[in-house]
Amino acid sequence: MNKVDLLKRRIDVAKGKIKAELVLKNCKIVNVFTHTITEGDIAIDSGMIVGIGNYDGEINKDVDGGFVAPGFIDSHMHFESAMVTPEQLASVVVPMGTTTIITDPHEIANVCGIEGIRFMMDSTKNLPLNILFMIPSCVPSSEFETSGARIEAEDISRLIDDNRVLGLGEMMDYPGLLDGNHDVLKKIDIASDKVIDGHSPEVSGKDLNAYLSVRIKTDHEASYLKEMEEKLSLGMYIAIREGSAARDLEVLLPAINNHNERRTTFCTDDKHPADILKEGHINYNLKKAVSLGLDPITAIRMATINAAECYNLKDLGAIAPGYAADIVVLEDLKDFKALQVYRKGILVAENGEFIYETRKPDTSSVGDTVHIREITTSDLEIKPGTQKIRVMRMHTGLLSTEMVIKNVNLDEEGRFSCKDNTGLLKIAVIERHGKNGNVGLGIIENLNLKGGAVGLTIAHDTHNLIVAGDNDEDMILVADRISQMKGGIAVASGGRIQKELALPVAGLMSNEPMEYVAKALDEISNYLYDEMNVPLGTDPLMTLSFIALPVIPEIKLTDMGLFDVNRMKFVGIGVEE
Amino acid sequence: MNKVDLLKRRIDVAKGKIKAELVLKNCKIVNVFTHTITEGDIAIDSGMIVGIGNYDGEINKDVDGGFVAPGFIDSHMHFESAMVTPEQLASVVVPMGTTTIITDPHEIANVCGIEGIRFMMDSTKNLPLNILFMIPSCVPSSEFETSGARIEAEDISRLIDDNRVLGLGEMMDYPGLLDGNHDVLKKIDIASDKVIDGHSPEVSGKDLNAYLSVRIKTDHEASYLKEMEEKLSLGMYIAIREGSAARDLEVLLPAINNHNERRTTFCTDDKHPADILKEGHINYNLKKAVSLGLDPITAIRMATINAAECYNLKDLGAIAPGYAADIVVLEDLKDFKALQVYRKGILVAENGEFIYETRKPDTSSVGDTVHIREITTSDLEIKPGTQKIRVMRMHTGLLSTEMVIKNVNLDEEGRFSCKDNTGLLKIAVIERHGKNGNVGLGIIENLNLKGGAVGLTIAHDTHNLIVAGDNDEDMILVADRISQMKGGIAVASGGRIQKELALPVAGLMSNEPMEYVAKALDEISNYLYDEMNVPLGTDPLMTLSFIALPVIPEIKLTDMGLFDVNRMKFVGIGVEE
Repeated sequence: MNKVDLLKRRIDVAKGKIKAELVLKNCKIVNVFTHTITEGDIAIDSGMIVGIGNYDGEINKDVDGGFVAPGFIDSHMHFESAMVTPEQLASVVVPMGTTTIITDPHEIANVCGIEGIRFMMDSTKNLPLNILFMIPSCVPSSEFETSGARIEAEDISRLIDDNRVLGLGEMMDYPGLLDGNHDVLKKIDIASDKVIDGHSPEVSGKDLNAYLSVRIKTDHEASYLKEMEEKLSLGMYIAIREGSAARDLEVLLPAINNHNERRTTFCTDDKHPADILKEGHINYNLKKAVSLGLDPITAIRMATINAAECYNLKDLGAIAPGYAADIVVLEDLKDFKALQVYRKGILVAENGEFIYETRKPDTSSVGDTVHIREITTSDLEIKPGTQKIRVMRMHTGLLSTEMVIKNVNLDEEGRFSCKDNTGLLKIAVIERHGKNGNVGLGIIENLNLKGGAVGLTIAHDTHNLIVAGDNDEDMILVADRISQMKGGIAVASGGRIQKELALPVAGLMSNEPMEYVAKALDEISNYLYDEMNVPLGTDPLMTLSFIALPVIPEIKLTDMGLFDVNRMKFVGIGVEE
Repeated sequence: MNKVDLLKRRIDVAKGKIKAELVLKNCKIVNVFTHTITEGDIAIDSGMIVGIGNYDGEINKDVDGGFVAPGFIDSHMHFESAMVTPEQLASVVVPMGTTTIITDPHEIANVCGIEGIRFMMDSTKNLPLNILFMIPSCVPSSEFETSGARIEAEDISRLIDDNRVLGLGEMMDYPGLLDGNHDVLKKIDIASDKVIDGHSPEVSGKDLNAYLSVRIKTDHEASYLKEMEEKLSLGMYIAIREGSAARDLEVLLPAINNHNERRTTFCTDDKHPADILKEGHINYNLKKAVSLGLDPITAIRMATINAAECYNLKDLGAIAPGYAADIVVLEDLKDFKALQVYRKGILVAENGEFIYETRKPDTSSVGDTVHIREITTSDLEIKPGTQKIRVMRMHTGLLSTEMVIKNVNLDEEGRFSCKDNTGLLKIAVIERHGKNGNVGLGIIENLNLKGGAVGLTIAHDTHNLIVAGDNDEDMILVADRISQMKGGIAVASGGRIQKELALPVAGLMSNEPMEYVAKALDEISNYLYDEMNVPLGTDPLMTLSFIALPVIPEIKLTDMGLFDVNRMKFVGIGVEE
């Protein structure tokens, strides 16, 4: 049907001259414009809501007095953190009421560059989940590690005009921006007609003014009430985050009132498989916000029309004529359990079941990304030249590390060995993009793993291969196995692989369902706790995955070596006198 | 300066590393995001606000605790109604705090077509008033009159992508739209990526749903509380209008609350010179709203950020870094008197004085639009064929007319003459676009003009020449004089032109200042009241200017003849038995 005929059809349906394809009857409609609940039918045709009132459809579906809200929008998510391919993600979050995710495919971009972004865009095209993109602005995040690819200003130019690209992803390089770095500002300029997401933890005062003077629009990093209030007052939209690690809702909720609510949205940022399966997605933000006292319609506005307005999604976020029929029918406005979910008028989930057939994506362009050279014991040899060495001390629940100076035992040839140094482990960051074969080595404390090694290809932000262990043989075994699996997680002990999870999609995502991934991760963690002495309460995989990120204090390890974050320079393991 | 260097400069200014061009010190800033007043300085550089806080500038201007708000936005105005060219309009409304007008150049488009729109766009380019455009959707407004031009879908295509074009102007032809008229829907489709303004007085229920199913976004025609509430609940932005004729604020204000306020804006639609000069522009909407009890910051939001959000004007409507330095300094939040007005950081008005030098526009493309053939007494001869005739009865304060049947005296040759019929006047609508030389004739009651004739080239919507009088000689004199002036208003009595106002710009606008125009109009009205018996309290010029609009009940006169609006057909003056 041509566009004019389609408009005419919608008019005729709205007028009641012809029947709508689908009418939801007996709805309690959450009206995000008026902040009220109104009763009535919703007429849906050709993917769009065309009428609210009293309608009759080809199909009439009685929602039995259920609350009918616009589908939920996650305003900021790196969905690689869910560790599954997009159609698997959809099958889990759509039944939870999410119909739109604004994603920054930052992780895969660090591995595969523009090819990775293209994979994400292509593989999300025909899903019953509307996935929209922010082009990563900071790939790699620093010059102190080897990434698989770079995203330059020209790459952004090439992608920015795509219909599903809403703008530039979170500008993490606020120091570079505040210094007036030319490449950073070029990227900002290219995206100036679209939305630019911010990332400015604790940036305030004149620095925050400067950050905003280039028209950065949003922030999802506010963690303190005063921080949120300052950012709101200077014009930022605040995305309130409930992810796996960062959980800001409880702290930030008191900042929201009827006057500023319109400038707030919900996001998850990074949420891992088990947490999504256990808690939920944006429905969890809603449930938690309401349990903490937020008005439920206000909460729904944050999850719908506010995000739509922020990102100029003019046909999303409301139950009204002319809006896409992205609809969630809720049992109540307390638990936000989705009874039915519609995407463009098609019932895609019911009672928690995903009922839309999706295809596995073609992952060939991002399926062969682990290219490491053969690792031998000599690659793992640590000869600090002195017994006084720098150790990376990890702390439960923190992504930062502490740099401590220790005296260690070395063998007659001056080599460090774990068996001579109880409580310390070797850690290696092995360049895995086939660029230079770098191996960075370090020594960590507090993981307390015994009798083996663990490794993974999720290592923010460049996702090299990290392996930690108390003996070289198991470390090499882990590296080899992960290489064979083309990415993933492996645990070796006593010369055998004990647990593993293949993540062959860019070394970040599985081809299996999210339940499978969550179970495998659970088994790996339990094996580390039960059989290898790792203390309960730590999250060894998450902790390791942040050990290579050279923008978090205090000492980090990249494939290029040990990095003193405070001094912004590489340092040796041995402390020079 | 290239764009990246400009961004860098703004960052450095915001950081306080280099001085801002201008700093407003000691401000009470109206924060439209948080709905609060905050104290501080505003740093302005290269036309933009770059910092809020404590700043030092090349120039520091102490605003002495004045309230500093974003410049006001008129969300819908046909500024031909102000009867002056754009630079004259700017010189009056900018000192009142208006910095942006969203205009639909509907009147000039009816006369000059796309040339008229281009004139408006060109002549507003370098003003210290940001004039943005909606392309007229309904030119001509009906097929029952001769317009100077038509705006077809292809014309809209040609203009829609211009940066200053925000979308499609008010869709007045809601009957056509609801009927699925192909041309109407084609225009809608062309504008579908931009904003489409509505015009749907009293449209409700399924018709309103149908109207909105094509994504019409705004309405400025709500006149009743229930009407506004229904429109808001279905997703329309409501522009609350205070114009010369339509004054909706007092009725609609009770519908506004903290939850729906974000979906409301202010507009004037049509406001005449004397009213603008006497009352003000958007500052008057603000003042009146607050006097009626609206919270002043809410009122300012309506006049600023709400309109900016509605029309996707991402750098307007707030005092915050990254926003255009369109700023008004107010004495208080009660009378909203503008002490200073800045446009892009330049002081353009102070204490009510316009202090920006503008140039007269080149009006040559729209300066020769009155092309009437020579009018003789035979053109004005009315021979109804029967004494029982249709008379257009006018009522004070109404744009609608009443159709009454009267028995009249005719001379021996069957001709109607005013001197034989006290209280009745002849009226002629003379096609003035040089298209066909049509003269439509009718008889009106209640204008009560004696001893002469009055005429004008403002006649909604096609702006033909209307002349009413009690004798043919003065009517012809008026027509001739207006033709000589290339448009305008003239009054003749006793065979002499007594009063006149030239409106040579499309026959709608003067080249003189607004004060001159207002004074001339006042003198014309007073002459009609004092010397020609027109009853005080009527507005004869306004009433005549709507007598040709064949979409307002009950009987109208176009150049094609007498039109029965209720039956949507032309009728004779004489009533057939």
